[in-house]
Amino acid sequence: MSVNKPAIPKGTRDFTPAEMIRRNYIFDTIREIFEYFGYQPLETPAMENLDTLLGKYGDEGDKLLFRILNSGNFLDPLNDEDLRSRNIHKISSMITEKGLRYDLTVPFARFVVQHQHELVFPFKRYQMQPVWRADRPQKGRYREFYQCDVDVIGSNSLLYETELFQIVDSIFSRFGMEVLILFNHRQILTGIAEILGVPEKLTALTVAIDKIEKAGLENVNQELLDNGIPQEAVDRLQPLLTMQGMDGKIQEKLDIVSGFLNGSEAGKKGIEELQYIKDYLETLGLKNRFAFDPKLARGLNYYTGTIIEVKALNVSIGSICGGGRYDNLTGIFGLPGVSGVGISFGADRIFDALNELNLFPEHFKSTTQVLFINFGSEEERYCMPLLAKLRASGIPSEIYPEPAKLKKQMEYSNRKNVQWVILAGKEEMEKEMVTVRNMSTGEQKQVGKEEMITIIN
Amino acid sequence: MSVNKPAIPKGTRDFTPAEMIRRNYIFDTIREIFEYFGYQPLETPAMENLDTLLGKYGDEGDKLLFRILNSGNFLDPLNDEDLRSRNIHKISSMITEKGLRYDLTVPFARFVVQHQHELVFPFKRYQMQPVWRADRPQKGRYREFYQCDVDVIGSNSLLYETELFQIVDSIFSRFGMEVLILFNHRQILTGIAEILGVPEKLTALTVAIDKIEKAGLENVNQELLDNGIPQEAVDRLQPLLTMQGMDGKIQEKLDIVSGFLNGSEAGKKGIEELQYIKDYLETLGLKNRFAFDPKLARGLNYYTGTIIEVKALNVSIGSICGGGRYDNLTGIFGLPGVSGVGISFGADRIFDALNELNLFPEHFKSTTQVLFINFGSEEERYCMPLLAKLRASGIPSEIYPEPAKLKKQMEYSNRKNVQWVILAGKEEMEKEMVTVRNMSTGEQKQVGKEEMITIIN
Repeated sequence: MSVNKPAIPKGTRDFTPAEMIRRNYIFDTIREIFEYFGYQPLETPAMENLDTLLGKYGDEGDKLLFRILNSGNFLDPLNDEDLRSRNIHKISSMITEKGLRYDLTVPFARFVVQHQHELVFPFKRYQMQPVWRADRPQKGRYREFYQCDVDVIGSNSLLYETELFQIVDSIFSRFGMEVLILFNHRQILTGIAEILGVPEKLTALTVAIDKIEKAGLENVNQELLDNGIPQEAVDRLQPLLTMQGMDGKIQEKLDIVSGFLNGSEAGKKGIEELQYIKDYLETLGLKNRFAFDPKLARGLNYYTGTIIEVKALNVSIGSICGGGRYDNLTGIFGLPGVSGVGISFGADRIFDALNELNLFPEHFKSTTQVLFINFGSEEERYCMPLLAKLRASGIPSEIYPEPAKLKKQMEYSNRKNVQWVILAGKEEMEKEMVTVRNMSTGEQKQVGKEEMITIIN
Repeated sequence: MSVNKPAIPKGTRDFTPAEMIRRNYIFDTIREIFEYFGYQPLETPAMENLDTLLGKYGDEGDKLLFRILNSGNFLDPLNDEDLRSRNIHKISSMITEKGLRYDLTVPFARFVVQHQHELVFPFKRYQMQPVWRADRPQKGRYREFYQCDVDVIGSNSLLYETELFQIVDSIFSRFGMEVLILFNHRQILTGIAEILGVPEKLTALTVAIDKIEKAGLENVNQELLDNGIPQEAVDRLQPLLTMQGMDGKIQEKLDIVSGFLNGSEAGKKGIEELQYIKDYLETLGLKNRFAFDPKLARGLNYYTGTIIEVKALNVSIGSICGGGRYDNLTGIFGLPGVSGVGISFGADRIFDALNELNLFPEHFKSTTQVLFINFGSEEERYCMPLLAKLRASGIPSEIYPEPAKLKKQMEYSNRKNVQWVILAGKEEMEKEMVTVRNMSTGEQKQVGKEEMITIIN
């Protein structure tokens, strides 16, 4: 065995205990809320067959899939001519048949179709697992990262849209983090393109208007023209682009857009659904604000109905959660006509936001709450039953493994952020007592064994 | 997009909600106990550089690694001659540089070396993540499976050996599952080979004697002879091989083996350590039995000291947990002389054992505990605040998304194993009440809103 200088692949990360404790706090909170709303856990394998994954994320996505080299003699299926051709596309398809999952949505669709006869519909599931993308690593973008998805499939009920708002509201309230929940509807975007007479330019239109906050009105108008949208249509669009100031005035905005969309069937449907959702949400008393944003598109993706995006306030981190309704997801696997709606939480961005806002609870710094100092084998045995008692009552505790110098043991407890240190030497043993030291205040006192447990509890 | 018949790769699994709820019960229990003992969570990436993984698991292990095809033009580094050679070994090393982790131990060692200056030693960590092996799939053997590892590194203290026994005992007590904890010591095995005059036959010796229960004494003796161990040595070994009947008599067995090993330094050290551990364990009052088994080797692996293996009783499932002390693990990454000890829990086997023994708690069948029947939009609105209250008090609850036929809604709640169904129609609304139905007993009664919450709590 050679001596390697240890490193990990670009774009991947180790999560140290300090990070893991905070990440688990995020995952546990999200999981708890998902379950309160009746969603059930699902997990799918890290590897999927390539024919499940290919063609679902566009050409760019196909290139970003991590492919697994076939086991055994992987060159067998290739003849000499194949090899000579150096045709990357063909050769890779012959030497790999599995890939790492790219998101949780496609595996979920694959699962639903594969298990459709065992599932109870509407099927409410959540899934929190890593995904892999061969993207160029950069700040905040990783090749391995976690997604936390919650979806319900097999119902058209708009109740589930409102439920997603409630889930978002509950989760970020629990984190003590203020967010703004933006919503729009795919049919409104379709309607706008229709009314402007450019239904075929839907994508160019949404890409352009999505930039208005960053690029400004003038540049957006130019981009629209550059993409072949006629001047007349651009003029007609202006009232929608200048609604920016109307923050919070959902009804007014809905009315303006509704007027604009007059005559479009798609647009009418979009407005009706959002009106229903908005009225419903107002009866629910959410803690966070929600707002209608007719520009919101989220790359269109699979969405066919409501589109949702959540932005963190008071921190420049952008979107931390998004999703919407999709009517055709399982169609790609041969099960058409099943409607679903869901959102995805980005654990990494939530982590960064909570960190920046200093919102992680203090006591999550450490798992170990109590350390017994080790003064020697006799004292050690005196401590063991107490240690067992603390553990049995659910308090993470440990004893230093050998009678090292007190300074060294105290340093260990400091670096591990231990809350309580228990000192039990000969004196304490004679009195059947222990000395309890509170590491935040520095206070310490001799107490009986039972009292120790009470103090720590 | 073509219509694919959905499937997953051989040897991998989807975990349905019913399975996930049980798996999470296992992971949560194990994690909780690990933390009570002061171990902290760690996660490493699914992908490691191949030079981290190769050469750590033997030639057979190298073949079982899943390799990730390099991104972009992966054939670039190969010239035409390389291609013509069809040298699998060389070509795979030039077109792949990452692989999926094969276990959690090597990534842990890599992590410790890489982060040695930030860590507090002794470093107590646990890690619960999937690993991947390109093994031939068969019943109970998967290509993706979870390991739950707990290790402490940077201390020689035997206290940690006893801690592992306590962890095993606590976890299986919590599961309500009886286990037998077997232990041995690598130096005892080394000592046996020394005393027999065949130190170079250590592996063949341990492989043979490990089979005695399945193969019987005669076949084991024959295998020893076949492997070039002299008749005289085989004769001398007999007293150790016929200790099988002495179940539970740890001290007697230690004494016999100690006598046998007289004159071996290694053997003496092994006996001394096990004696210390055994005496210590007897003061701790474990609920499960432990036993000394001088044949136990666990493939030798990295172990240099104590070796531990846990067998489930009352179920034919074999070893469900194993580990030991290793002195050289981080040496392969350039950090010699750091001793560690740890064990690994096999989540899949524990799952099978709990299933077979019918030990999963009943209430883990479902996450959703309460379903509100949907009688229409007015009734729905009447229910929403009650639903919100239940969720806020931590009770997983949902409402059927539309006013479907009662039969359909009841079927949904049955198939989801919901505990309570709430019916609130016009009559209940007028009286400001609801009807609560207990789905296990079939009992139902009309109660006030507050009472409903009390009943369900």
